[in-house]
Amino acid sequence: MTSPIKPWIFTATCPSLLGTVDVVTRYMAASGHYVDEIHSFDDREAKRFFIRIEFTPQSDDFSPEKFAEEFASRAEQFQMEWELTEPNHRPRVAIMVSKYDHCLNDLLYRHRTGQLNIEVPVIISNHPDLEPLAKWHDIPYYHLPITAETKPQQEADVIKLLEQYDIDLVVLARYMQVLSPDLCRYLDGKAINIHHSLLPGFKGAKPYHQAWEKGVKMVGATAHYVNNDLDEGPIITQGIQQVDHAHYPEDLVAKGQDIERVTLFNAVRYHVQKRVFLSGSRTVVFSN
Amino acid sequence: MTSPIKPWIFTATCPSLLGTVDVVTRYMAASGHYVDEIHSFDDREAKRFFIRIEFTPQSDDFSPEKFAEEFASRAEQFQMEWELTEPNHRPRVAIMVSKYDHCLNDLLYRHRTGQLNIEVPVIISNHPDLEPLAKWHDIPYYHLPITAETKPQQEADVIKLLEQYDIDLVVLARYMQVLSPDLCRYLDGKAINIHHSLLPGFKGAKPYHQAWEKGVKMVGATAHYVNNDLDEGPIITQGIQQVDHAHYPEDLVAKGQDIERVTLFNAVRYHVQKRVFLSGSRTVVFSN
Amino acid sequence: MTSPIKPWIFTATCPSLLGTVDVVTRYMAASGHYVDEIHSFDDREAKRFFIRIEFTPQSDDFSPEKFAEEFASRAEQFQMEWELTEPNHRPRVAIMVSKYDHCLNDLLYRHRTGQLNIEVPVIISNHPDLEPLAKWHDIPYYHLPITAETKPQQEADVIKLLEQYDIDLVVLARYMQVLSPDLCRYLDGKAINIHHSLLPGFKGAKPYHQAWEKGVKMVGATAHYVNNDLDEGPIITQGIQQVDHAHYPEDLVAKGQDIERVTLFNAVRYHVQKRVFLSGSRTVVFSN
Amino acid sequence: MTSPIKPWIFTATCPSLLGTVDVVTRYMAASGHYVDEIHSFDDREAKRFFIRIEFTPQSDDFSPEKFAEEFASRAEQFQMEWELTEPNHRPRVAIMVSKYDHCLNDLLYRHRTGQLNIEVPVIISNHPDLEPLAKWHDIPYYHLPITAETKPQQEADVIKLLEQYDIDLVVLARYMQVLSPDLCRYLDGKAINIHHSLLPGFKGAKPYHQAWEKGVKMVGATAHYVNNDLDEGPIITQGIQQVDHAHYPEDLVAKGQDIERVTLFNAVRYHVQKRVFLSGSRTVVFSN
Repeated sequence: MTSPIKPWIFTATCPSLLGTVDVVTRYMAASGHYVDEIHSFDDREAKRFFIRIEFTPQSDDFSPEKFAEEFASRAEQFQMEWELTEPNHRPRVAIMVSKYDHCLNDLLYRHRTGQLNIEVPVIISNHPDLEPLAKWHDIPYYHLPITAETKPQQEADVIKLLEQYDIDLVVLARYMQVLSPDLCRYLDGKAINIHHSLLPGFKGAKPYHQAWEKGVKMVGATAHYVNNDLDEGPIITQGIQQVDHAHYPEDLVAKGQDIERVTLFNAVRYHVQKRVFLSGSRTVVFSN
Repeated sequence: MTSPIKPWIFTATCPSLLGTVDVVTRYMAASGHYVDEIHSFDDREAKRFFIRIEFTPQSDDFSPEKFAEEFASRAEQFQMEWELTEPNHRPRVAIMVSKYDHCLNDLLYRHRTGQLNIEVPVIISNHPDLEPLAKWHDIPYYHLPITAETKPQQEADVIKLLEQYDIDLVVLARYMQVLSPDLCRYLDGKAINIHHSLLPGFKGAKPYHQAWEKGVKMVGATAHYVNNDLDEGPIITQGIQQVDHAHYPEDLVAKGQDIERVTLFNAVRYHVQKRVFLSGSRTVVFSN
Repeated sequence: MTSPIKPWIFTATCPSLLGTVDVVTRYMAASGHYVDEIHSFDDREAKRFFIRIEFTPQSDDFSPEKFAEEFASRAEQFQMEWELTEPNHRPRVAIMVSKYDHCLNDLLYRHRTGQLNIEVPVIISNHPDLEPLAKWHDIPYYHLPITAETKPQQEADVIKLLEQYDIDLVVLARYMQVLSPDLCRYLDGKAINIHHSLLPGFKGAKPYHQAWEKGVKMVGATAHYVNNDLDEGPIITQGIQQVDHAHYPEDLVAKGQDIERVTLFNAVRYHVQKRVFLSGSRTVVFSN
Repeated sequence: MTSPIKPWIFTATCPSLLGTVDVVTRYMAASGHYVDEIHSFDDREAKRFFIRIEFTPQSDDFSPEKFAEEFASRAEQFQMEWELTEPNHRPRVAIMVSKYDHCLNDLLYRHRTGQLNIEVPVIISNHPDLEPLAKWHDIPYYHLPITAETKPQQEADVIKLLEQYDIDLVVLARYMQVLSPDLCRYLDGKAINIHHSLLPGFKGAKPYHQAWEKGVKMVGATAHYVNNDLDEGPIITQGIQQVDHAHYPEDLVAKGQDIERVTLFNAVRYHVQKRVFLSGSRTVVFSN
């Protein structure tokens, strides 16, 4: 009944109401779609329902248009926002970087080896440094320098590139710039950022130096969606590394980079596999 | 719609067939049972379907008998084995121990503080050493010594106790005895064992000493169901601890005990929360 | 040459100067003390030297008095603060608790089974709840209730108890009270506290609820020395647990407690084994 | 007294004898070498002493030749094998690969960004696949195909290359070939290998498939020195990843690769920083 063919992914969210699961699964069964895996969760505080289904159509004439046509009226009854993702969907991801390449290198490696099912049609940076790495991967690299004066223009240029390349997701792979409220709004829910996240949290300049002053024994990283509060958007995933007294600030930075790149990769992977749902200031993540 | 009332748990497994999810969720919706959470998984190798649902009945006259009556014929069509577990279900757990108390102490603490929803009506040991700990928790303690000659009789006595106390689950909390094939068969799928599990695996006597000889840098533990191959039953969960060259065999034992007790607790918790399904020599675990 | 006899521990700290190691190791060799293990570290920022040596005297007439007499003048040249700890040293530890028993239960279990080489001559609490647990371990339990008005008197009573029982170390095992500056000063460097430590850090009331609002994917704990800034004293060790969206605030609390007790145990163990050195606002920890 | 200049590293091992530490530290002090960090360990089973010191010469006329001349006779008394490593020492590392590039890519990235202080003068493979990656890093790539018949000749060619390029360390970064006993002997203690290491250990073909059959909940990796028993040489470090029932064999392979590359990197780093000592079938690792 099951097959090695990669499944389609159906995701949906709506207010918590009796019958939310049934309206989906009944349609799947009636249409002869084989359900390989379900995760559903009902957030009893937010009073919101989330579901992710992997399914394999059994008939040859399956089409997403037909699915949409048949399912739309059912979804409407529940104010359900839903999405259908095809098996080999490769979202178009723009990677934005500054001078640090640890995250970029890791993402491109995962991309090149098929661990990350994405297209990377463009890399954008405010510095020229990482162009050779982009070149080796045959990816166009745009150097858009930024100063306080040119910021509005530079951000407009960024948006133009994102539209020109028809981008689905922006990954801020250590872009190191504070985005304007306008750009944040534009990217809301469509951009993933990585930032250091230490125990206890340190804000402001030189966070690793502050952490060292406090003698932390762990450094961490948080991957989150961008929203209007740049470093405080909804968290997707977090990672941690142990350190000790022999780690000076520069060693904390190195350890931090290792956990940053793994954490960012996991967040992008979850997003691409449609495992992440926004729920107000939080996320529901059906990880694996 | 949702409520702080703890939900009922529905679990089921059957061969992979179109409509397995629908038969369940359709009944839930039709009966007005609110679905709080679903995990389903279809093992494409074993061609078997597994589902776990937490749901909250919305009507006052809900009864498991009525559920069974109405659902039975639907289940039959799919050769579905299913189970309904009430919100405050506390399975009756017999703990079997030898002289080591690290696992027993941890389980009783979790039991006493409500982290583990179980009854512990009886503790059985082949040694008298841990009776005081049992006494403090007001739990009957049976000292059933064992020798090569008395083994058949001792195991018969164990089984008699398990039946007398109407036991749902046996936890071998470092019982340190090789069970006879007969007792293994009796306990098949109804007993959880914990054993050391090192990298690479070491069999036979003094495993931690063997591991030390090899200079391992990690020690681990595996919690699994008992089957006829005592230490090779289906794995429920595994844990790991880092060690270094300064850990002599006795230190490895101490580190191993720490990870054994956490790992055993997690396995029992998953079992009690109906998160574990047997699938041949493997398990499906909807952990959290 | 080495022996299964547990070694003596020598610890020292002094300003960074040429010859700090030599003054110690030369004396060890000249006195016929066999050195089993050395850790030394020179903090190049604080310009301070730290050393911990495990050694086994080879002669029968070894005495700490003789060691002191011979070594004192050598230490003086380097303004070296040093300490000699005998093999079976069991510091006298007072445990202070409130109503939560997860840390207390763990410490007493480790104490009872010899994993933690300490005496626990007294347990002090502002609530009566945990007396039965203390009783089972035959440890005097003092219930010293506290209100805003009685705080000065209660703290005076606490200090009196600490002196009466000749306490070396105070462990705040979820004592849940804000100590007065006076008591903090009294306990400076002689008390270990455990507090939740989340990513990012949350201060104020209901930290786990705040963390849940932010949708954190990890909860943590920090064990640290008490100083005048109650929750910000020098960090000894930190621990972390993964969580997900299905963990409501009460679940975060439960997960947090598990990591709190392990983290506090590790901190106390490191302290007792003389592995922790204060270095300003930081610590040097020769962990194992 | 200390300085941001990277320190020299002194490492030594000899039988356990009174005075082993003193002979080293006394010379350091007498010569005016500032000791930044010491780790020593006395293996009471192997009766062997190990020491690693980071030190900063204070005089301008320091030379390793002078050190050797002055220290040699002292070392001789203790049958001490010792080594002096200069601050910017970059050992010459040959990387051997097959078709998998996850380890190679990671090592080259760390090399390129300075996280790993090594020269990589040559990459050797029995397949042509990874040549482009080598080219981008400007590293000569030798494709030496191998069959049962050509194995002796191929291994002779490998050895010739290792000598031609004056190689200090060989890293088998998933080379996937069983080395002949002769080549093993040649590489004894001078080559690091990475292999999967699962719980419980699985030997033979398709280890991840075997592990999946058993339903393991963790996959791991072990980095070790090559000796005559190919996959059983002295362990340097080990790593682990959690998996669950939804990971089919190919998913276990992917998870395994992630932990393989980190584990291999750590092993190479420890070796390069002179943190690893062989002690019979085990290692002493002064990790950080």
